[in-house]
Amino acid sequence: MGVDCVAAINGKKPFDLVIQHVRIVNVFTGQLMDGSVAVCGDTIAYAGKMDFPFTAHKVIDGKGRYAIPGLIDAHMHFESSMMTPAHFIEAILPCGTTTVAADPHEIGNVFGLEGIRALTEAALGTPLHVLMMAPSTIPSAPGLERSGFSMEAPGMEEALDIPGVAGLGEVMDFNAVANGDERILAVVEAARKRGVIMDCHIPALTDRHLQAFRSTGLDADHTGMTLPQLQEKLSAGFFVQLQPTFFTAETMEYLNQLPYQDRIMLVTDDVPFIELIREGHLNANLRRAVALGLDPILAVRYATLNAAVRLRLYDRGAVSPGYKADLLLLDSLEDFQPSLVLSDGRIVAENGACLVPLSPKPFPEDFYHSIHVLPLEETDFVLPPAKGTRALCNILGGSSQVTCTAKTQQWLPIREGRPDPDGLVKLAVIYRHGYGPDKKPGKEVSLGLLSGFPRFRGALATTYAHDSHNLMVFGANDADMALAANRLIELGGGLCAVLDGRVLSEVPLPIAGLLTEEPLDALKKTFEAFFQAVQTLRLDHERPMMFLTLMSLAVSPEVKCTDLGLVDVLEKKFIPLIVSTE
Amino acid sequence: MGVDCVAAINGKKPFDLVIQHVRIVNVFTGQLMDGSVAVCGDTIAYAGKMDFPFTAHKVIDGKGRYAIPGLIDAHMHFESSMMTPAHFIEAILPCGTTTVAADPHEIGNVFGLEGIRALTEAALGTPLHVLMMAPSTIPSAPGLERSGFSMEAPGMEEALDIPGVAGLGEVMDFNAVANGDERILAVVEAARKRGVIMDCHIPALTDRHLQAFRSTGLDADHTGMTLPQLQEKLSAGFFVQLQPTFFTAETMEYLNQLPYQDRIMLVTDDVPFIELIREGHLNANLRRAVALGLDPILAVRYATLNAAVRLRLYDRGAVSPGYKADLLLLDSLEDFQPSLVLSDGRIVAENGACLVPLSPKPFPEDFYHSIHVLPLEETDFVLPPAKGTRALCNILGGSSQVTCTAKTQQWLPIREGRPDPDGLVKLAVIYRHGYGPDKKPGKEVSLGLLSGFPRFRGALATTYAHDSHNLMVFGANDADMALAANRLIELGGGLCAVLDGRVLSEVPLPIAGLLTEEPLDALKKTFEAFFQAVQTLRLDHERPMMFLTLMSLAVSPEVKCTDLGLVDVLEKKFIPLIVSTE
Repeated sequence: MGVDCVAAINGKKPFDLVIQHVRIVNVFTGQLMDGSVAVCGDTIAYAGKMDFPFTAHKVIDGKGRYAIPGLIDAHMHFESSMMTPAHFIEAILPCGTTTVAADPHEIGNVFGLEGIRALTEAALGTPLHVLMMAPSTIPSAPGLERSGFSMEAPGMEEALDIPGVAGLGEVMDFNAVANGDERILAVVEAARKRGVIMDCHIPALTDRHLQAFRSTGLDADHTGMTLPQLQEKLSAGFFVQLQPTFFTAETMEYLNQLPYQDRIMLVTDDVPFIELIREGHLNANLRRAVALGLDPILAVRYATLNAAVRLRLYDRGAVSPGYKADLLLLDSLEDFQPSLVLSDGRIVAENGACLVPLSPKPFPEDFYHSIHVLPLEETDFVLPPAKGTRALCNILGGSSQVTCTAKTQQWLPIREGRPDPDGLVKLAVIYRHGYGPDKKPGKEVSLGLLSGFPRFRGALATTYAHDSHNLMVFGANDADMALAANRLIELGGGLCAVLDGRVLSEVPLPIAGLLTEEPLDALKKTFEAFFQAVQTLRLDHERPMMFLTLMSLAVSPEVKCTDLGLVDVLEKKFIPLIVSTE
Repeated sequence: MGVDCVAAINGKKPFDLVIQHVRIVNVFTGQLMDGSVAVCGDTIAYAGKMDFPFTAHKVIDGKGRYAIPGLIDAHMHFESSMMTPAHFIEAILPCGTTTVAADPHEIGNVFGLEGIRALTEAALGTPLHVLMMAPSTIPSAPGLERSGFSMEAPGMEEALDIPGVAGLGEVMDFNAVANGDERILAVVEAARKRGVIMDCHIPALTDRHLQAFRSTGLDADHTGMTLPQLQEKLSAGFFVQLQPTFFTAETMEYLNQLPYQDRIMLVTDDVPFIELIREGHLNANLRRAVALGLDPILAVRYATLNAAVRLRLYDRGAVSPGYKADLLLLDSLEDFQPSLVLSDGRIVAENGACLVPLSPKPFPEDFYHSIHVLPLEETDFVLPPAKGTRALCNILGGSSQVTCTAKTQQWLPIREGRPDPDGLVKLAVIYRHGYGPDKKPGKEVSLGLLSGFPRFRGALATTYAHDSHNLMVFGANDADMALAANRLIELGGGLCAVLDGRVLSEVPLPIAGLLTEEPLDALKKTFEAFFQAVQTLRLDHERPMMFLTLMSLAVSPEVKCTDLGLVDVLEKKFIPLIVSTE
């Protein structure tokens, strides 16, 4: 409290904590200040030379380390790590992330408002400061897929009333906004009239369409940030939230010389579990950006004060009097590995270890039973019948380097009255959110074919499949596909690898088919075994997790397979599996 | 509305207004964009090349002029102009000021919460966007003067509830904050816990005392901005609000090269009537700053987007889609005289003329009867009795160039049993806010003596006297002093010049003794006549209005005269008029 800070500075009471011998990064001036940081309660009282007498309950020798504000991730998703919030928070606090703005659209797609509410409750009350966003676009492509919920304007009103919810989550269907689609604009308006922050997702809009989008009040984007796109968005009044996908040396050089530095942020968006383990969190992005040439002090500002201003957290983002005592001690502004992490004046992590054990809050009982699918048989995966000798089929043209697909066509031989995949991987997407208010189970199997993975064998199944998170199976044979799918039904969701009638490996994700309560060390082993199994199945993709979870994303070009069929993403329409036969 | 903007950009409806052929100042990039600005309702839909087909209800040819956002004055006082809000607003809209944050502490000193409420109501509902602040420090020096109100924590709570009130007004008693004074910190806390913006007034604090001040959450200052002070305040996390008093070429050069440009603003603070007429409003400050070397685009940003961000007006401060259509067309970024002014998409001024006539809202009846003083006699102004031949007196050491005073002592001859002013000007301050709930009138006359004006003759009286606005009279003889004072009692307040028993000139300020409803053109003549009279009285001061109104300001060094006596400002104590006799 201010009163206590004033009293302590005037020598009338002790500071709670003084950290001496630090090089403070001043985010207002861009300069380094050698001195001390004094804390009273949760607030920084003083930062600087400190050549006046004082007493303190605790004094720490900073040993010449850098002191920077706690990192603020202005756009991220809890669910990408597949960990329940408590364990994810235990993992990111030691990386120096002390504040996040999170968009729970994965769990929102499965459990709607109940999902948003449950994730928010699970995430609040820890040393991580959390702003939750209300997911705006569920499902991502209405009419082309089914998720567990449909977000309309009344649902948005309700979501914005949930304690802890601070704004509108990224609007996925950018074309709909730019074209004036009434449904999405009604959802946006529900948020705009409350004056809350509103996020965007604009992989591809320019000039008047980009400005049309911006005219609605939506104003922070984290996609489509090639250098020309970044320049156009900055010019059009967007906050630019840069994720590593778009880090280039050229962009860093451009950023270094910008005349106005306040509208740029570094964010994580999605950090898969394995990346979190190997690289870290937002600090890893600072490391990468600086390695590509970004000025280290700018990197700090981008991930602290600038994010705080966008998120309207007026007392966070600086090591400065009156600001909350979220701060990190670092050996280096290249590495960004904090040796000490404070949140609200309290030490929460040291040398990579979280000092505040957090018990996972259980989710509501029905969250553990979210796969409403009847047991499947081999015969459920056969391709539709066809007459003739060969069938021209629409194919997802995949590749081992990317997660997008090309719209392709291929002639397949007809054998035993059906097209033969002939080395293509079969894709099946099964709606799993249940029918009607009682969520009756069913087994509608929507099929597709995927090229680019000729060596693949066995089957891989997942219930984490952006954005609708239906049950998706990739297979070289129908028996393994049925086994993998049935195993996930038994588990209540997860990832599963099967070969020759045997489950090789599985990652149970029993919470909504998205998250696990397994703690980090055990989960690491589980994932390592799973990736080993993926290799055994010879998937041969550079980023297998991204790939597996994106083949159903109906807003991501060019062709995807959803629970309702094959989708031409750019045309926003269904296309048949079998085009013609002869 | 966003929906309309999108529809218009897509050619589905006409824009309300398109301004073509303008050079848009882009406050995000610092660059100029040649093109057009399109407006729907109160919102900018598009700003740029505009090479797509459109229709518009109205098209204006910008003729190559600059288009900048409407100017935002983040710290000012309505009352300094002495005009009722409607007329003041009619004067500043043509200068390009479209938003202000105003601190009504003058009228707050006279009429407390009622005054804040009345001024707020008078100021709202016009094309000027007004944020009112709740004055924090009334009286400015508790115990050393009496005003019409005393602001304590409960009063602050009530003030913050007034519709239109957005934050805490400048905390005048900076030493009290830095020393941990409980009373002022309770007032600050009432605002801080609501999370509203909070302003400062720190002419002189450094290092730990400055940081102690900042630790309370107070974070924007507009005083004490010599270059070293500015640098220290920026470093300590203050928003820097620069008024012309502190404009130097050296400071402008420093600002031009700052790495981070988002925390600096240009503000007006107080603009006396005559300056408003001659120079303009905030635009005059931009003109002066640029003339001293400030980059013109920076000047624009300082007076638009930066102020909007500090004031938390997320949709103002840029000529950009989604922002409110407050904008100016200018011939030059040196002169800053707008040829056209829009507010919320509506043309409100053109070529220096306000196109929206505003009728002054009357104040409550008792505001016109605020001088609760009994008629005065010549004998009420005699100095206290003294024995001996000469008396050593404490003197306000004045000068014709400055508005501060030096603490001086001078021997005065004793004639007829009292000290003889002997060429010094006599000062009288008479408490005028009435005694008790019925505001009974009285006539306590507090006396002082002022050096530095040997030629002065006659008497000048004012009820506009910072901060407590008691009735103050300057006189070379007691008869003229009594006449001047009595005239102001009759008028209900104002300024009055008297010579040899005759009123030479007067400026009635019947609203609270501070404001007039006289419209601008007539008031100009009234003031010109008054200044002529001031010259006739040979006051010989460079800035007579500032001087007259500041001789009672008990927080402004070194010695001042209040209704309770002579005050040593730095020691914060009373000193006697007569020190000793011999």
